[in-house]
Formats: sequence, structure tokens, C-alpha cells
Amino acid sequence: MDISRRDLFLKSAGMAACIGGGAFASDLTKAETVEEEGAKTFFKLYPVGRVEKKGKSVWLRIFDRYADALKGLDGFSHVWVLYWLDKNDTPRKRSLFQVHPRGNKKNPLTGVFACRAPVRPNLIALSLCKILSVKGGVVHIEKIDAFDSSPVLDLKPYAPGIDSPTKGVRLPDWLKR
Amino acid sequence: MDISRRDLFLKSAGMAACIGGGAFASDLTKAETVEEEGAKTFFKLYPVGRVEKKGKSVWLRIFDRYADALKGLDGFSHVWVLYWLDKNDTPRKRSLFQVHPRGNKKNPLTGVFACRAPVRPNLIALSLCKILSVKGGVVHIEKIDAFDSSPVLDLKPYAPGIDSPTKGVRLPDWLKR
Repeated sequence: MDISRRDLFLKSAGMAACIGGGAFASDLTKAETVEEEGAKTFFKLYPVGRVEKKGKSVWLRIFDRYADALKGLDGFSHVWVLYWLDKNDTPRKRSLFQVHPRGNKKNPLTGVFACRAPVRPNLIALSLCKILSVKGGVVHIEKIDAFDSSPVLDLKPYAPGIDSPTKGVRLPDWLKR
Repeated sequence: MDISRRDLFLKSAGMAACIGGGAFASDLTKAETVEEEGAKTFFKLYPVGRVEKKGKSVWLRIFDRYADALKGLDGFSHVWVLYWLDKNDTPRKRSLFQVHPRGNKKNPLTGVFACRAPVRPNLIALSLCKILSVKGGVVHIEKIDAFDSSPVLDLKPYAPGIDSPTKGVRLPDWLKR
């Protein structure tokens, strides 16, 4: 962990005052060590394509080098599109952990892991989309709630056996309204 | 794009032989420029917690600094867990674009965007899990097809209105078997 990240971590954990320089690691409990590890670890995500919108038409244009990964997608009716909320990729927006869902203050303050807000620590958006066609590197879809040119991260086919609950879906009141 | 990445890109695009040093960008079409941009761009993903397994019990242990993001998740029955397939985070496994689903050679060679293979350009896994309880930073779930200590990237509540197709689910034969 470099010094600035470590300071940030210590400050956010409220521990800056109680830990001296040399004794850092040994003063941490195991859980804190894992958390410290989380602060310095990151994984690299590469865009595999872009969302393209024109009027009411929407395509996922997959970059040439990834086009082979689409083989067989035309056998499915629906696809999960994982894309990056690139307009919100700022330290501030990645640190907003609670919001009023749908920007409506009548909805209770809710954690971003309990709603689909476009601000979250990792800016991955998940949308289920109806496939109209797959031709070459281009997937024509019915619609998507994404900005034009949003970076596409991954596509996964919709499979009811694993993607739908077998029983008892329960929802909070704000989502039923 | 640094030289090594550029060379890799040129080689993978089969263009290494036809483009000279100075005239690089101007020789590319617009689509290729976007693709080149994709090759150097990456986004940073930070683990927000870990999968913990003990016997038949499974928890998502969210790091302290992200625990506020869980507020309200207990109002839901099911959660999408996005986690990182960290054991497969190698250049080779991130470059396998077609597989026989479920490792069964009787299944047709299929693009990784058309199945849920644990090798893909971006190693994000997506699992729908039943929530048993949410206490502090710990989400007790029924089960998950992930290794112990897999890095958790994001949680999203299951919302039938956006997460289930309204009509006509279609699947390829290999998935019906």
C-alpha cells in the first residue's frame, strides 16, 4: 500500500491517530488486514465494445478482437448486458454509499447494494435486454437504459434455471409503489 | 498505447505488417481508432468484500467501509452477487473466447458471451442468491457457485420488473438438455 492510500485507509477507518509508522501491519487484526488488502488490490476491466444508439434503435458493437465470443448468442432471446457507468467514474460518486432510490426523497435512504443506483463503488450496470439479431460483431437489442457509447464489459445469456428465483420473491415497499 | 500493447494490438488485428511507425493513427479507420482506444482503456474494480464458505454455510463478508451500502437489503428475498473469478485472472484465460459449455465436447463450440463459462475477457461472475439474513456487514445467503474467498464486486437486489423477461424466452438446444 503506498503512503497516500494507506493514509486514506487509516483516516477512513478512524485509526490514523493510534497507529505508528513501523508497527502498522502487526497492530491490525486479521479482519483489518483483509480489508487493507482490499484497499490496494484492484482488477482491470477492459471494454469489449460500446453501446450505440440512434433514434429508437440500439446496438451493442463488439470490438473485432472479441467478436468470436458472440458465437451462439443468436440461440437466445435475452442477454444480460454488463456495462460501465463511465460518466460517474469519479472518486466522489464511487464513495456515495446511500441514496434515495430514483432520486425521490420520499423513498427511504437506501444502500447502493440494495438498489440499482448508477453510483456505486464499482460502476457495473446490469440490464436484461431482448435480442433482435446478432450479425458479425453487432448485437441488435430492443432497448437499454444506457447512454450512447457506454463501454460494454460482458454479455451473458439469460438462462431461467439460474436467473429466476424458484419461489417467494420479497420486495421492500418503496419498490412496490 | 504503449509500444508493447500497440504491437500486441497490431498482431491480433493482423495489421503489424502494413502499418509504419509514424503514420499509425491516420492509417486507422474510425472504427479501428475506437478499438485501439478500447485496448488502452481500463477501469479499476475494487473488491468490496469476500465470499466465505464453511461447510454448507455461505456468507458475503462486506468490508467495513462499504457496510453502509447494505442498508435496506434485508427488505429483499434475492440478490445478484457479482464476484471476480480471480483464479482465472491470467492473460491466457482472459483470451479464451470459445468453449464447449460445461466442459462437455458434445455441446457445440460456443462463444463465452453465449454461455456462463468462468473464462471471459472480464472475469465477472453473476449469481442470483437467496438472502437468509443481513447483519452488520455480513449477508448470509443460501448458496453460491463460487470458491471460498472470491472477491465480491457488487450486490444488486433482484427486481422482477427489470430482471425477468416479459415474454418469449428462447434457448439453444444444448441448454435444454
